[in-house]
Amino acid sequence: MPFVRIDALCAASDRPDRLDALGRAVRDAMVETIGIPPDDWFQVLTGHDGTTSTLRYGDYLGISRDEGIVFIAITLRAGRTPEQKQALYRRTAELAEEYAGTEPRNVFITLTENESIDWSLGHGLAQYVAPSEGNAS
Amino acid sequence: MPFVRIDALCAASDRPDRLDALGRAVRDAMVETIGIPPDDWFQVLTGHDGTTSTLRYGDYLGISRDEGIVFIAITLRAGRTPEQKQALYRRTAELAEEYAGTEPRNVFITLTENESIDWSLGHGLAQYVAPSEGNAS
Amino acid sequence: MPFVRIDALCAASDRPDRLDALGRAVRDAMVETIGIPPDDWFQVLTGHDGTTSTLRYGDYLGISRDEGIVFIAITLRAGRTPEQKQALYRRTAELAEEYAGTEPRNVFITLTENESIDWSLGHGLAQYVAPSEGNAS
Repeated sequence: MPFVRIDALCAASDRPDRLDALGRAVRDAMVETIGIPPDDWFQVLTGHDGTTSTLRYGDYLGISRDEGIVFIAITLRAGRTPEQKQALYRRTAELAEEYAGTEPRNVFITLTENESIDWSLGHGLAQYVAPSEGNAS
Repeated sequence: MPFVRIDALCAASDRPDRLDALGRAVRDAMVETIGIPPDDWFQVLTGHDGTTSTLRYGDYLGISRDEGIVFIAITLRAGRTPEQKQALYRRTAELAEEYAGTEPRNVFITLTENESIDWSLGHGLAQYVAPSEGNAS
Repeated sequence: MPFVRIDALCAASDRPDRLDALGRAVRDAMVETIGIPPDDWFQVLTGHDGTTSTLRYGDYLGISRDEGIVFIAITLRAGRTPEQKQALYRRTAELAEEYAGTEPRNVFITLTENESIDWSLGHGLAQYVAPSEGNAS
């Protein structure tokens, strides 16, 4: 269920490997910390060339960021505890460094929550709610 | 008002037609099921080449997905009923198949809700709230 | 903290300058109207060529829009007042015109709110919550 967008600056030659590594880092961190099954993997991975599309970032909160910045935006159902979210952040930063060489200072994550009825994972159905909750026939 | 992002993998030659068909499918489904006017059409349609940018997906919930996967992320005001959302999912999957040849198993939809004050549809105004609700002059 | 996506149609030759101007317009409007520090600047700026990726828009609410359309999607913590949001919309439209030549009718903005725990701005930490609110060690 979590739907994830990962945006990074990268040269054309680096793209497939770097994006793949970042995608695996986020997926594995979710599996380990917030109870997501390994095949619950839905991501848009975008490498920005700095011209056609690009990223902007500042040193907000005294954190020195650079062109290694990675934006990770996760949409997921409400219900994870603060402790789980904090564990997710820590593990994502660790694995982004381990898999992709991204420095932890450059890992930017934001979560947006919605509800069970807000997901259709295929076949035009709302899999997280019982059919009787709606008018599905 | 709904603001929609549609992400699909597609070869360069397929892009304009396929993206157009997917965009129309989502728009028409909204018109038919959740009362959106036909000209209330705001979408970002992105074709991913699998290298510069790409998608990841698994077989979560036992649904076999493939490179025909389409991610549809819709931001809209709160207020649609579960029945309306379920109708939207069903009709979107039907029209994505009819217009774009996308198999229903590959249609992934997620909704994120916000409030009337969270929209400005042009001219720097918040059209969904009365000026007296804010300090607009 | 606000995390911003800006999407515009633009010819390859216009991209870097136009995207840069739009990014500065949104940033400066936030600084002036909703109390964001200048270095709290996190944006994904995407120029769409109309083929690989593209935008769709209608004349909803009687506003005539054209290929100068700009979609600005802002994720931020809950708490801004309606007055602040309206000021943000007005100032963004003004600065988009001043910096990028974008007509106010083409400035489309939507906000999505989340909570303090939903942000990690680097180092795998949730900077907006006290460590004691979670299990951070």
